[in-house]
Amino acid sequence: MTKPIEVRNPRTGKFDYVIIPQSPKLLSQQCHRLRRGQIQWQELGIDGRIEALQQWKQALLSERDQLTEALINDTGRLSTSLLEIDSFFSTLDRWCHLAPQLLQDTAKNTSVPFIALQQTAVPYPLVGVISPWNFPLLLSTIDAIPALLAGCAVIVKPSELTPRFVAPLMTALNTIPHLREVLSFVEGAGQTGANLIECVDLICFTGSVETGRQVAVTAANNFIPAFLELGGKDPAIVLESADIDLATSAILWGSVVNTGQSCLSIERIYVAESIFADFYHQLVAKAHKLQLAYPALENGEIGPIISEKQAAIIRDHLQDAIAKGAVIHCGGKVEELSGGWWCRPTVITEVDHSMKVMTEETFGPIMPVMPFSTVEEAVDLANDSIYGLSAAVFAESAELALEVASQLDAGAISINDAGLTAIMHEGEKNAFKFSGLGGSRMGADGIKRFLRKKAYLIKTNASKDPWWFNEGESSKDI
Amino acid sequence: MTKPIEVRNPRTGKFDYVIIPQSPKLLSQQCHRLRRGQIQWQELGIDGRIEALQQWKQALLSERDQLTEALINDTGRLSTSLLEIDSFFSTLDRWCHLAPQLLQDTAKNTSVPFIALQQTAVPYPLVGVISPWNFPLLLSTIDAIPALLAGCAVIVKPSELTPRFVAPLMTALNTIPHLREVLSFVEGAGQTGANLIECVDLICFTGSVETGRQVAVTAANNFIPAFLELGGKDPAIVLESADIDLATSAILWGSVVNTGQSCLSIERIYVAESIFADFYHQLVAKAHKLQLAYPALENGEIGPIISEKQAAIIRDHLQDAIAKGAVIHCGGKVEELSGGWWCRPTVITEVDHSMKVMTEETFGPIMPVMPFSTVEEAVDLANDSIYGLSAAVFAESAELALEVASQLDAGAISINDAGLTAIMHEGEKNAFKFSGLGGSRMGADGIKRFLRKKAYLIKTNASKDPWWFNEGESSKDI
Repeated sequence: MTKPIEVRNPRTGKFDYVIIPQSPKLLSQQCHRLRRGQIQWQELGIDGRIEALQQWKQALLSERDQLTEALINDTGRLSTSLLEIDSFFSTLDRWCHLAPQLLQDTAKNTSVPFIALQQTAVPYPLVGVISPWNFPLLLSTIDAIPALLAGCAVIVKPSELTPRFVAPLMTALNTIPHLREVLSFVEGAGQTGANLIECVDLICFTGSVETGRQVAVTAANNFIPAFLELGGKDPAIVLESADIDLATSAILWGSVVNTGQSCLSIERIYVAESIFADFYHQLVAKAHKLQLAYPALENGEIGPIISEKQAAIIRDHLQDAIAKGAVIHCGGKVEELSGGWWCRPTVITEVDHSMKVMTEETFGPIMPVMPFSTVEEAVDLANDSIYGLSAAVFAESAELALEVASQLDAGAISINDAGLTAIMHEGEKNAFKFSGLGGSRMGADGIKRFLRKKAYLIKTNASKDPWWFNEGESSKDI
Repeated sequence: MTKPIEVRNPRTGKFDYVIIPQSPKLLSQQCHRLRRGQIQWQELGIDGRIEALQQWKQALLSERDQLTEALINDTGRLSTSLLEIDSFFSTLDRWCHLAPQLLQDTAKNTSVPFIALQQTAVPYPLVGVISPWNFPLLLSTIDAIPALLAGCAVIVKPSELTPRFVAPLMTALNTIPHLREVLSFVEGAGQTGANLIECVDLICFTGSVETGRQVAVTAANNFIPAFLELGGKDPAIVLESADIDLATSAILWGSVVNTGQSCLSIERIYVAESIFADFYHQLVAKAHKLQLAYPALENGEIGPIISEKQAAIIRDHLQDAIAKGAVIHCGGKVEELSGGWWCRPTVITEVDHSMKVMTEETFGPIMPVMPFSTVEEAVDLANDSIYGLSAAVFAESAELALEVASQLDAGAISINDAGLTAIMHEGEKNAFKFSGLGGSRMGADGIKRFLRKKAYLIKTNASKDPWWFNEGESSKDI
């Protein structure tokens, strides 16, 4: 049950870290403690909760070097780790800024003159978060921060592949009196995650479709809400009128950022046939300029593949495509360097939807490019997927692009750029198909998901009779 | 598979109606047809959809007598059937009035100067509704109407216990060109409901906890949203300062309306011990005045028990309470009259939480009354339940009552009245515990649940570079 799990280092391939999965009994005790803490946390009010989170931020700034080092060991990346830490702090500040207004109770007008309506909301006492390995810090806190501000206690189980970043978070956390009573991280793999769902009132899960389905079913059995952010196979559509230079730069970034290990990465590219050759030539030229961040951390742009399992999937997708006639223009293989797995930016043409690289989530720096002859065909190809997370459309004008975007089955669509949801969090979006379930993580819903709405309906007239005495003939006889 | 189901008449006990469960193959074809119709329905726009629903209303007004007769045969009730029809029309008008504003797209400000956000939403193509027998017309349309206005197609499987009301609805529906392509009713029992979930993009279920759990699990397996409105065991708390005359009248209505066959009916009454005797004496006196609607439809106020299975549950709860020492002050038994099952308003004291009548959903005109000595005790008793649908609190002032209401685990709480959610639909509320799952059926969420949110993030600056070129040092290297 509590057999240690050895953790691999993505740059060296060495198992240089160990975690001890939390036992079910200790997990249950931990959740009881968090529930007790939550009562005071809720009573603290939004100002007190903001203060505690800001104190945590200050304490974390002192732990910044340790946090950076841990994230680098977890992910094998320097620049993305720095970016992740910056994004974590800005997410924290953003929610602290927005929360007070979003959490206000409201009196509402009603259509019945003798009833007043007071609308309020109460936090789910204990929120569970199960987070993945691709952005360990960001994705373990993206739901936790708004949940904490809403007044919930939160228990997080980060991926067993990237657990090192937790220690410096905890060092800082343990100095903050209120917050440490309502935020916990727990070590473990799938079984610990399954145990965790049984202890909480709401579950947020970011990860694979397969595990996401198990999470949703367990949550349904327990009548608790499940918010799932699952896989994607995001398409980019490049219309004939698009600026090819802009499109190739944006799509290159959108495809290879974080070595493609991002749910919002571009995984399929459909280009108008008249500009197809120009497009992929430019894309290949730009891809060639990118280097592996190897041997030194500070070199190049493309980090190692974090998960060994994922490296095998990328290799499988490439081999499958090549076997079916695809043409590789750059990159094209998963290579081992000093124990780590690496893949250079890879542009592929002669692809079709019989290939895994066009239908299954690859999660690598792979750019399969396919021409289309009509806009209708482009839309059909983009929608021919079990996924529907996000997308991108490029055209001369936003109007032309929006016309296409409106036909795409995806929750967030970048227009003349890629992955804009990475920097702009105001847009509410729902996943389509197998890409997720439940309310939007972005926008106001991002915090309101953690509150149950409660309505007080108050009889305001002085009559001694209840309302049904005053209703029409038909209700007089009960 | 398509073996006919005989339907019992609640007043006569005779099986005088037959339904043929839809075969899986025909159900699947029907859903395909609805999906085709939905495309046009969505394109029709909100004004066209309102027009079609208003035409249906007009056509139904011509079928009003047939509808009333069918509902009377389904439920055994005259006045409640008339009230149900009125409520259906007012619900339809209310949503037609509210929908245009609630469905508007919005442009939103963003925190990133070079990104514009256009927020829109698209309907889930096909919504499934599985509805119960206690308010056959209202509860089969309460979700269907906002879903249709949102642009969805809707397929409804009403309860196999009360299917007669569908025929007149369909007669009227078949005269409305657009609407008949996107709204269907299907006959059948549990298996048909299970088949239906497999065909739709979103499911609304109103019914038991047990079936609700199966619905939620199937929906989770299919990654479709499930909105569940399940059982309740609504408490009323009467504080020492309450107006006893008002409280007894309101609680009597709240408990016995529709013979207690209402999810929002008061099922447990906690009264300050200083006024306990006065309270239950008044309640018994008022309960005695109510008569069975028997033998003629027009007699009395209390209709028959619709479901034979429910009659057995009510009897079981009463026997269990009596065996454990409860005292019956009026009513107290389930009796057969000319083949129907009936129960008079029943006031019980000497009850406690060891009895089913205080913990399980009774769904009959049963009023168990229990004294409390402190407000804290009252709150603990009210929250000692697997349910958390709604509640009522009575006190001299709304402020005193709200102080108690804020401590109750329930989504909607009536203050100095009972069941106000039956007439005021603006308050957004979530179920607590086993009483349900998913967004609020009331308030703006009632229609927004049927839309997927879609965000268009538009790069608005003239730069030829994508956003990440303009970001800080750390992201320059991808």
